[in-house]
Amino acid sequence: MKRSHRVAAICQILTESPGKVFALKYFCDMFNAAKSSISEDINAAKDAVSVTGYGYIETITGASGGARYVPDISLAKAQSFQDELCALLQDEGRILGGGFLYTSDIMYNPATVRGMAQIFAKKFRDSGADYVATIETKGIPVAIMTAQLLNLPVIVIRRDTKISEGATVSINYSPGSSERLQRMSISKRAAAPGSKVLIIDDFMRGGGSIKGIVEILNEMDIQVVGKGIAIVDVTPQRKKVEDYFPIIHLAGVDETSKIVKAVPNSDIF
Amino acid sequence: MKRSHRVAAICQILTESPGKVFALKYFCDMFNAAKSSISEDINAAKDAVSVTGYGYIETITGASGGARYVPDISLAKAQSFQDELCALLQDEGRILGGGFLYTSDIMYNPATVRGMAQIFAKKFRDSGADYVATIETKGIPVAIMTAQLLNLPVIVIRRDTKISEGATVSINYSPGSSERLQRMSISKRAAAPGSKVLIIDDFMRGGGSIKGIVEILNEMDIQVVGKGIAIVDVTPQRKKVEDYFPIIHLAGVDETSKIVKAVPNSDIF
Repeated sequence: MKRSHRVAAICQILTESPGKVFALKYFCDMFNAAKSSISEDINAAKDAVSVTGYGYIETITGASGGARYVPDISLAKAQSFQDELCALLQDEGRILGGGFLYTSDIMYNPATVRGMAQIFAKKFRDSGADYVATIETKGIPVAIMTAQLLNLPVIVIRRDTKISEGATVSINYSPGSSERLQRMSISKRAAAPGSKVLIIDDFMRGGGSIKGIVEILNEMDIQVVGKGIAIVDVTPQRKKVEDYFPIIHLAGVDETSKIVKAVPNSDIF
Repeated sequence: MKRSHRVAAICQILTESPGKVFALKYFCDMFNAAKSSISEDINAAKDAVSVTGYGYIETITGASGGARYVPDISLAKAQSFQDELCALLQDEGRILGGGFLYTSDIMYNPATVRGMAQIFAKKFRDSGADYVATIETKGIPVAIMTAQLLNLPVIVIRRDTKISEGATVSINYSPGSSERLQRMSISKRAAAPGSKVLIIDDFMRGGGSIKGIVEILNEMDIQVVGKGIAIVDVTPQRKKVEDYFPIIHLAGVDETSKIVKAVPNSDIF
């Protein structure tokens, strides 16, 4: 196999499985080549991907050494994604009664969710998280795709207890402006005590759900090391949680004039 | 930029966004190269990725022409994934009361879910589906990752109606052996009448939920063109739906002897 073909195939394999470490030996066996050749190939692959504005290749030395693909997105690409997302959100056809916006088409579209996941993955790649956690339902896709880029498993907190979750821990929480309590529960098998977790969700208004997630994870002796929320409503100004990272601010939904105002977070990286 | 670097970078970019067509011009602009050179680069990229056992590159001719990455998995890689999944499922620690198995760690792990998605994407890539549909909650990750590989949006059917879904269509259905009815609902905005849908879910026993999904989609004048289920229980033998495609058969959960029996579908491609 030609050198240039090996380099290209290595780029494909690493890009297919972000975060996963591939030992040199894996490629030596696949291409029937010496370690020194594969080492050179990986360096060439590293140079090649460095110009595209997406992920880069990291080499790990030592006994368990090899190479892995680290997902990345350039500031320019991230900003142009934010602008596209704002334009999508500002479509007046999304306005539902009561100031609600229809966003399921956005949150269930892998192509759009991937952009959010790339931004979260870059922002939180050094957070030390062992898991990505979210609460059902609409945040699951962005949590899964962020977790895929970070090569982490996901914890899904449920709104009701299910027999298929085994023993669970539950809490009551106050979801928002209304004082009606809601319930959330997590399987005791979901994560080991002492773990670190990155919370990812699709939307936040007052922050009640996110605060609930922090509390239920604390009940399990799990530490929250980051909170990434795709869309954060600017009102109420005072949230129930701090240190959250939004991609887009929802600045207003006016049912009468049919105007939705969405603004990119101007301080993403 | 060196030719071999361009070829490798093209592999990375195409692999990053499966199914998405990139015009030759995109690469011409990125690398400041002539169409004829980029054409040769893409052919070299095509050859390079053909040996890895994963996706391949397809070139599209004509005005809207270019290249795209088609996700694939070789039979050998798919079978070895099935074996790994069976081994995971057969861990006696998964046995919950009532013959239930804990599978959330599997269904929420992007690395495992990706293997399922690769098999579904290969199986259903010519199904003509416009959407992938699933019902909340545990099937969402595998549905999203299958949809990502097929470059399709996802429809998530909810178990209750939500204000953020706008106007909905709801049905009652009989989920299983018990005759207690349950409810599912779908946003009227989720898909246009006349669309074609591929159903993807994590688990099926009697087939009541899947039958419900088919019915609610039919209410919306949407046609089901395929049904992929990650794990299908062999009992009851008679299911409420036909023509489903399982990756794994769950052949028995014995609480007394603590034995779980899982068998790969031997006829995947």
